Amino acid sequence: MTISLASYQDRNNQQLNLWLDRIPHQEQTLTQAMRYGLLLGGKRARPYLVYITGELFGLELSELDTPASAIECIHAYSLIHDDLPAMDDDELRRGKATCHIEYDEATAILTGDALQTLAFTILAEGSLSNISEPYRIALIKELASASGALGMCMGQSLDLEAENRLVSLEELEEIHRNKTGALIKCAIRMGALCAGEKGVEVLSHLDRYADAVGLAFQVQDDILDIISDTETLGKPQGSDQNLNKSTYPALLGLEGAMEKAQSLLQEALQALEAIPYNTQSLEEFARYAVERSH
Amino acid sequence: MTISLASYQDRNNQQLNLWLDRIPHQEQTLTQAMRYGLLLGGKRARPYLVYITGELFGLELSELDTPASAIECIHAYSLIHDDLPAMDDDELRRGKATCHIEYDEATAILTGDALQTLAFTILAEGSLSNISEPYRIALIKELASASGALGMCMGQSLDLEAENRLVSLEELEEIHRNKTGALIKCAIRMGALCAGEKGVEVLSHLDRYADAVGLAFQVQDDILDIISDTETLGKPQGSDQNLNKSTYPALLGLEGAMEKAQSLLQEALQALEAIPYNTQSLEEFARYAVERSH
Repeated sequence: MTISLASYQDRNNQQLNLWLDRIPHQEQTLTQAMRYGLLLGGKRARPYLVYITGELFGLELSELDTPASAIECIHAYSLIHDDLPAMDDDELRRGKATCHIEYDEATAILTGDALQTLAFTILAEGSLSNISEPYRIALIKELASASGALGMCMGQSLDLEAENRLVSLEELEEIHRNKTGALIKCAIRMGALCAGEKGVEVLSHLDRYADAVGLAFQVQDDILDIISDTETLGKPQGSDQNLNKSTYPALLGLEGAMEKAQSLLQEALQALEAIPYNTQSLEEFARYAVERSH
Repeated sequence: MTISLASYQDRNNQQLNLWLDRIPHQEQTLTQAMRYGLLLGGKRARPYLVYITGELFGLELSELDTPASAIECIHAYSLIHDDLPAMDDDELRRGKATCHIEYDEATAILTGDALQTLAFTILAEGSLSNISEPYRIALIKELASASGALGMCMGQSLDLEAENRLVSLEELEEIHRNKTGALIKCAIRMGALCAGEKGVEVLSHLDRYADAVGLAFQVQDDILDIISDTETLGKPQGSDQNLNKSTYPALLGLEGAMEKAQSLLQEALQALEAIPYNTQSLEEFARYAVERSH
């Protein structure tokens, strides 16, 4: 998993750099901060999911670069804004200074804004050799649905209002389904849409897989936040606990949370059984989601 | 002008409300703050430009609602983020509390983010009965180009770095061409693109018009910032001066700035002469840009 992920990361970084190279004001702080925020490191889990889902259907990576780049821009912008003093107030991200620390708050706000826009520029202008225009429009619809008030932003808002109070398991799932699940599901759906009709046919199974994996990823994040130390995670250990955020271990106990992660893994693997292609990479990703240590 | 603008405003507000009604979490702070930020008032100049440009070609208003709504979302998000403490730190906008004062900073950041996304949802999903899919994609391209690192966000970044130092007239124009001009030009281009081939044929003339009017609008804003009082503008008078921002009156003198506005008006009117349709509304808009008192 680790080795194979790295080559997709490199490819994604190269693609993102090419998009940034197209900005006329290369020396401007905004451009530099966009590059900083976008290429700071990170697992590139969402682009990876776009790529391996598209590969199910025999697509070349070059046919998947466009949605893979676009979704990473959305993820990167959300991290930059989440780290702001008015939000999570984090000074470290992936072991490096967050955007508003490296530059300043105004720049970090603008950088997030411009990275969100870049995502849609990429989907509107990027190469999509395999599919027709209605599919390009479908990709734009998917990404916008997953990242705005019907997805990620709403999840963030629900999460902010859940601070300092006990939420039910149902509420917690609603938060994460929006906050992180929507974008993970979107990555998988976009990978499938790049295969056109073939992808659409198995979309419901991929959705089931994605819902389970997205939640499993979050459960494992919560678990790691308790058991890892600062060095491994690159951010202060237990930072969610400090904000009195509800987590799966808080609601279910550490062991209960681990069982939850395992049951979500089984659900994800079951969903893949209905798909008549080689789903090994997606299987491995599901296992990675709940077995990773960072 | 005033009367006719009002009916377009009402139409635009109705359309925006319909889009907001589609968000599942209606009671959530994010949704309420989006409605607050989007329907706080304002001239609706950009939707108006979409509508009157489309009408040139005989389009119905219903064929222009989609880009008109989308561009207002972008404008509204930019105002919410511009007003943040880390940016212009404004507590009043259009005579009412700004989003981060009415709610809080975190909500204002998220609200701007989600309004930007909504713009692209609208362009991807909204009705565009008159044109084919390549034109829908062209609209998305236009809006993304105008609002991100190739347009508005870059203008904002250039503007931030121009504070507290003297800039040349050339630099000032580069700031405004990006910061406000790009979106005004985009409104006009989107109105034309909704007419398909007919619109594309006169795009170069409309571009010339838009460049002149966009700059004229800004010059007049600078002039008004000097000569108006707080009550008329709904924001503290001279607030740009307080931040030591370069303005046209500062570089050219008040009279020189007024002459500049007049010469841009003439340029705009000349560009319209080459267009073989009834351009009266665009003419009136250009006059309004330099003759308005608020």
